[in-house]
Amino acid sequence: MSGGVAPSPPRPAVLRAGELHPALSEPVLESMNLLNEISHRHPGAISLAAGRPHEELFDEQAPERCLAAYRRHLVRDRGLTPEQVRRTLFQYGRTKGVIHDLIARMLRIDEGIDVDPESIVVTVGCQEAMVLTLRALRADARDVLLAVAPTYVGLTGAAALVDLPVVPVPGGSEGVDLDGLATEVRRLRARGLRPRACYVMPDFANPSGLSMGLATRRALLEAAAELDLLLLEDNPYGLFHGGDRRPTLKALDTGRRVVYFGSFAKTCLPGARVGYAIADTPVIDAAGGRRLLADELAKIKGMFTVNTSPVAQAVVGGHLVTHGCSLVAANTAQREVYQRNLRRLLDGLAARFPVGSGVRWNTPSGGFFVVLEVPFTADDAALERSAEEYGVLWVPMRHFYDHPDAARRLRLSCSAVSETGIDEGLDRLEAFVAAHR
Amino acid sequence: MSGGVAPSPPRPAVLRAGELHPALSEPVLESMNLLNEISHRHPGAISLAAGRPHEELFDEQAPERCLAAYRRHLVRDRGLTPEQVRRTLFQYGRTKGVIHDLIARMLRIDEGIDVDPESIVVTVGCQEAMVLTLRALRADARDVLLAVAPTYVGLTGAAALVDLPVVPVPGGSEGVDLDGLATEVRRLRARGLRPRACYVMPDFANPSGLSMGLATRRALLEAAAELDLLLLEDNPYGLFHGGDRRPTLKALDTGRRVVYFGSFAKTCLPGARVGYAIADTPVIDAAGGRRLLADELAKIKGMFTVNTSPVAQAVVGGHLVTHGCSLVAANTAQREVYQRNLRRLLDGLAARFPVGSGVRWNTPSGGFFVVLEVPFTADDAALERSAEEYGVLWVPMRHFYDHPDAARRLRLSCSAVSETGIDEGLDRLEAFVAAHR
Repeated sequence: MSGGVAPSPPRPAVLRAGELHPALSEPVLESMNLLNEISHRHPGAISLAAGRPHEELFDEQAPERCLAAYRRHLVRDRGLTPEQVRRTLFQYGRTKGVIHDLIARMLRIDEGIDVDPESIVVTVGCQEAMVLTLRALRADARDVLLAVAPTYVGLTGAAALVDLPVVPVPGGSEGVDLDGLATEVRRLRARGLRPRACYVMPDFANPSGLSMGLATRRALLEAAAELDLLLLEDNPYGLFHGGDRRPTLKALDTGRRVVYFGSFAKTCLPGARVGYAIADTPVIDAAGGRRLLADELAKIKGMFTVNTSPVAQAVVGGHLVTHGCSLVAANTAQREVYQRNLRRLLDGLAARFPVGSGVRWNTPSGGFFVVLEVPFTADDAALERSAEEYGVLWVPMRHFYDHPDAARRLRLSCSAVSETGIDEGLDRLEAFVAAHR
Repeated sequence: MSGGVAPSPPRPAVLRAGELHPALSEPVLESMNLLNEISHRHPGAISLAAGRPHEELFDEQAPERCLAAYRRHLVRDRGLTPEQVRRTLFQYGRTKGVIHDLIARMLRIDEGIDVDPESIVVTVGCQEAMVLTLRALRADARDVLLAVAPTYVGLTGAAALVDLPVVPVPGGSEGVDLDGLATEVRRLRARGLRPRACYVMPDFANPSGLSMGLATRRALLEAAAELDLLLLEDNPYGLFHGGDRRPTLKALDTGRRVVYFGSFAKTCLPGARVGYAIADTPVIDAAGGRRLLADELAKIKGMFTVNTSPVAQAVVGGHLVTHGCSLVAANTAQREVYQRNLRRLLDGLAARFPVGSGVRWNTPSGGFFVVLEVPFTADDAALERSAEEYGVLWVPMRHFYDHPDAARRLRLSCSAVSETGIDEGLDRLEAFVAAHR
């Protein structure tokens, strides 16, 4: 091994999958890949699977236009010199982000949420906000996370990667079964475990499409206080409502008990990859020092991604200042399109699947998703046949939970497809169902 | 807890620091904050601490210019339709990134590294490449990571956050002590532990400034093969050499044993937050299936940040295509500035601290960093006095390793300061040393 020895042919490196992090072998980490892969193999299929934003609404010059708007904002509204503008956009920056003030203003205007901008962490999409929070909350093997089932796979996957088991809480018809939640928390504590938080998507949840009523929201906050649990509120779809918009849990939260995950993927641009966490819960150390959970998340973020690209933040910041810091105002066209598509999907289902057809579905008033009960096993093999033989894609609900109900359920999405695409997709689905009844 | 009960005043949530992830209490996660905070409190101080890129070289319109160049590339060179361009830039995208082909071309041109673009994962800065790799490699409590000491705090922090202990390997005068490495690996294995990889920065290491000679590089690759260890090669400063450029470990790696972390922060724009991993090591599962480590990293990335902002990738991609996919070509001015500054720093040290002054330093031929031995304890308290009373900032080496040598050593950086700043900073440092001899 000393310098003088002639090099022998190197032994090639090989890793064994069993010696990598165990989450890498869990189905949830394969879910998105598998669905993308089926979609990729059937480029001609109509996708009622993808929960992506509608592309026709993308403005061709959005990044450049938003960058310019943010530069102007820095100069005019914040009085920065050209040198300071350059440093803000180009250099390493503040770990918690540079558009936290604009996000705080948006939250006041759009959501009635009043938070110190210091409690906001700007993240690489909502996904990073989740993973930072779960990483902070998982101290040791006693910690578990509760999550309303069926559950967004991004939450389940992130939890697996920080070694945090996810315990399902029934959603019921109200979006969360509060008795089930309390029972589960007590059962876990009796076993010496530490339920840290409950993950919920109160508005047009992915994948269920369900929303919580106002009374349920208040009762959930009360239950969380009684059980001394945090609530992790994920809200990517709340703005795409049907006129019956409800306050978020965070807007109702007077006890700093809700960590809120925000996304700009659907309300601005997925390609910016910018989201945020509101984490104003106080953290008290052994010496009595008090800080914000946001500052603990920032310490993790510093070691995960250093900071969110200020160029990407500038795109979102420019979008915000262009619309007076209101995403509600910025998304009127988007809301119309998603509402129109959702109605088209629901009407189309009603036209094709009469009572007695063996197909049933829920009727969300907003968001991107509808869940169907079908008279066949809606698994990956069925999806493969549907894609191959009928040219239509959907998502088996069993990707989102392990429950007998899931076997004959599937998720439809109406966000990334045209009205004629919805019609044609439903025709194909109807044919598929007829052949599999 | 049922709907009818009148809401009582909520119990406010409080988290105890001891119930958060233990890494949050480790000094390494406070290091950067502490240094930033001292710097923030002394805005008038000259910073010989910051390892940031030189700001005068930033082109004011870089993001817009690079975006335009990348759009042109997609249309002209790749034949994309306007719709496809829009989808590439704006929509959720490929988990492993969209500029992997350009990075592979750059690696061939600049580094003589020939890799399948599929083995590249484009990440949110080099930091995410590290954390994804460490997360993959940490399967259970038996796993440990080796790292040449002193060690970049970003590595130590990332490892702590994935519960992976870091065992220091002496650097010696060659950049890595190969006998020390072999001894440590055997000692760990005898204890039932599983050393997975050794982290090294062979070119102008942060913080030591040291580089490995060619013979050491070859011997390290041989040792790694013999010991069946992966090498994690981090190379943010390699292009800023003094004419004596050496091949990277990855260029010499014929056994797919090197995972390479690349950064565009110093060679393009920190504000893009784009880096990458080359991870071509095969992973074999129990059924004999074979894939690339890059695909395992992508599964983790999907749950950490989904994908790296394509807008940010477009900035880097545009920079690459503008310069014929050569960062060497793109960074001639940068290399000159950093070389000029390094010479100024080394000459300035020689002029101020003659033999017998009690101050000694190493003489790297490139990169950003020089390490000084000083005749006083170079701790955070000394830094605070230096900032407060003398107006000059540096970094105590004890942030980078726990070793008696560290106590009287400090790191100077010459990257983000002007030549007159270097002179004035060294004058102030000279005065501080004189007062603390």
